[in-house]
Amino acid sequence: MDAHSLSPLVDGLQYANWSHRIFQQMRAGGVHAVHATIAYHENFRETVANIISWNRHFERHPDLIFHGKSGDDIEKAMREGRTAIFYGLQNPSPIEDDIGLVEICHTLGVRFMQLSYNNQSLLATGCFEAEDPGITRFGRQVIREMNRVGMVIDMSHSAERSTLEAIELSSRPIAITHANPMWWHKALRSKSDAVLKQLTESGGMLGLSLYSHHLKGGAACTLESFCTMVAETASRYGVANIGIGSDLCQDQPDSVVTWMRNGRWSKDVDYGEGNAATPGFPDQPHWFTNNMDLRNLSEGLRQVGFSTSEISDVMGGNWLRFYKRSFHTIR
Amino acid sequence: MDAHSLSPLVDGLQYANWSHRIFQQMRAGGVHAVHATIAYHENFRETVANIISWNRHFERHPDLIFHGKSGDDIEKAMREGRTAIFYGLQNPSPIEDDIGLVEICHTLGVRFMQLSYNNQSLLATGCFEAEDPGITRFGRQVIREMNRVGMVIDMSHSAERSTLEAIELSSRPIAITHANPMWWHKALRSKSDAVLKQLTESGGMLGLSLYSHHLKGGAACTLESFCTMVAETASRYGVANIGIGSDLCQDQPDSVVTWMRNGRWSKDVDYGEGNAATPGFPDQPHWFTNNMDLRNLSEGLRQVGFSTSEISDVMGGNWLRFYKRSFHTIR
Repeated sequence: MDAHSLSPLVDGLQYANWSHRIFQQMRAGGVHAVHATIAYHENFRETVANIISWNRHFERHPDLIFHGKSGDDIEKAMREGRTAIFYGLQNPSPIEDDIGLVEICHTLGVRFMQLSYNNQSLLATGCFEAEDPGITRFGRQVIREMNRVGMVIDMSHSAERSTLEAIELSSRPIAITHANPMWWHKALRSKSDAVLKQLTESGGMLGLSLYSHHLKGGAACTLESFCTMVAETASRYGVANIGIGSDLCQDQPDSVVTWMRNGRWSKDVDYGEGNAATPGFPDQPHWFTNNMDLRNLSEGLRQVGFSTSEISDVMGGNWLRFYKRSFHTIR
Repeated sequence: MDAHSLSPLVDGLQYANWSHRIFQQMRAGGVHAVHATIAYHENFRETVANIISWNRHFERHPDLIFHGKSGDDIEKAMREGRTAIFYGLQNPSPIEDDIGLVEICHTLGVRFMQLSYNNQSLLATGCFEAEDPGITRFGRQVIREMNRVGMVIDMSHSAERSTLEAIELSSRPIAITHANPMWWHKALRSKSDAVLKQLTESGGMLGLSLYSHHLKGGAACTLESFCTMVAETASRYGVANIGIGSDLCQDQPDSVVTWMRNGRWSKDVDYGEGNAATPGFPDQPHWFTNNMDLRNLSEGLRQVGFSTSEISDVMGGNWLRFYKRSFHTIR
C-alpha cells in the first residue's frame, strides 16, 4: 500500500503481555506506532532488563516491529508496513535519585516518563494521595532535564496540583497519554476541566483511554458513548490536541495489575481502581480487545460526526506531529 | 583549516583524569579522536555513572569534545575542530553475566571491550594468569554478540591462547588497542610475534603503547628507539594495521593505578607491572606527556624513514578506516 494514501494510526499507551501474536495483531490492525510502557516500579537495572527483552523482540520480529525513536519513525513504519514501538515509564523509579539517568534513559530510547504513579514520588504527587504538595525540588530539576533531552512529561497518574505545576514549569508541551475527562466519568484517575484546558492550551496532548475503569459504565460502555465523549472533548479543547491512549493490557495475568498497584511499597493489598471483590484486570468493552479493534474507533468517530480528516488527526495525526516535535535534544 | 588538508590524528587508548585542561590540550594537539576507557572493574550501574560523568563533560565543553559513535565522527571532528571521544571498557565487568548488556552498552556508545584485564574473566584469560584455558562458553556467546552489534573485541590485557582464539572466533577484525611487540620489550603485557601476525593477517589493528612499562628502557626510552620499533612493526605486519594507543593516564593519582590493578578482587596489594618499591604510575618519557606531544611522534616517524602518507596512516588514517568498518550493527 502507498504510504501517502495511509493515515497514521498511533496508540498513545499500551502495556500488553507482548508476544508474536500481539505484534501480528498490530500489523493486521494497521497500527504504525505504539507507546509501550516498559516499567512501573522497576529501578534502573530492572528497566534495563526490560529493554533487553524488547531488544530480543526486535531481533526476532524485524518484519513486524522496530524501536521507534523519533516522530519520523512513524512515517518509516507507514512506508515499511511495520509498527514502531516507543518506550515510556509510568513512574520515575527507573531514574532512581539520579538526574543523570534521565539522559541515559533517553539514550536507551525512553521518550515518555510519568512524574508519579498514583503515589507520591520523588518528583510529584500521584492521584491516589490525600495531599498534593506539588512538584518537588528534584522534580523541578528533572522537568528541566527532560525538556533538554527530549523526554515527554506524562501526568496520566498524577494529582491535580502537581499536574498543573508540571504544565507550568515545563518549557515544552506535556502529555496525559491515557486518561478521560472527569466531566464524563468521575474517578480519581480522570482529569478535571481545569487540567485539560491548561494542558491543551499549552500545546499538550490528551490520549483518551479505553481501560474499563476509565469508561462511563465500565466494560458495558458503548462505542457510541465513548465517541460522543471524544466529540465533546474535541469541542471543548480542540481536535488538534487529542489522540487515543488505549491503556490496553492485553493477555496480562492478574499478577501484573497487582504489581502495577502495589509495586514493593505495600504489604497490604491495594486494589487501585478495583476492589476486593474484583481484584484483577477488568474486562474490556467488546468493541476494543486488541490492536485490530482500533479500526472500530474510526468508524465510531465517523458515526458521531467527525470528518475523515479529523478522524485521521485523532487516530494518529496529532500524535505524529507531537512526537515529531518532542523527542529531539535541545542544545 | 580546511579539513581536506588535515590528516586524521587518533589516539587508540587513553585513561586520563579528564578535565577542561586535558580537552584543551587535545585541541591544541590537533587530536581528532580518542578511545577513552570508561571502566576497569566497574559493574554495569557504576559504568553508567561514568557515562553520566562524560555526559556532563560533553554538556560543559561542546566547543572542544563530543561523543563519537561512528568512524564518520572522526571526519566530523576534523571538519569542526573538535575531538570525538569513543568509549571503551578494559574489562567485561560492565556486562556482568548478562549477554543482553552487550547491546545496551553499545546503545550507550561503547565501541571497544577487552575480554579480560590481566586476570581470568567470565569470557577469557588475562595475561597475568599462570594458565590460559582459552575463550569460555560465555565468551563465545559474547564474541558473537559483539560481532553482531559492532563492538570491537580488544585483547590488550589478555593471555596468548585466549587472544589467538578470539581472533579465530571473531567474524570481524579485532584490536589490541595498546601494547607493544614482545620482540622489542619482553613483558607479560607485550604481544608475541604469533599473535601480532594472526591479528594483522585477519585485518585487526595494533595500537602501539607509550606507557613506560611497555617501553624498552622504560621512561628513558628514546623517541628514536620507539619509532625504530614502529618501523620494524610496520615492516613485519604491514603499515596498514598499526596505529597509536598511547595508554596515556595523564593527571591520575596513584590510587587509580591501584584500582586498575586490584579492583575489588584482592585484599593483598597487586603491583601489576610495577613493584613494591615503585607502586604508583611510572613516569612518562619526556617526549610524550600529554596530547600535544602526539606531534612529536609524527616527526620521530619521519626521522626513521616513514613517508608523509605512511605517517598519516599510522597517526590516524588506519584507525579511521578501522573505526568506519567496525561499529555498525549487522542485522
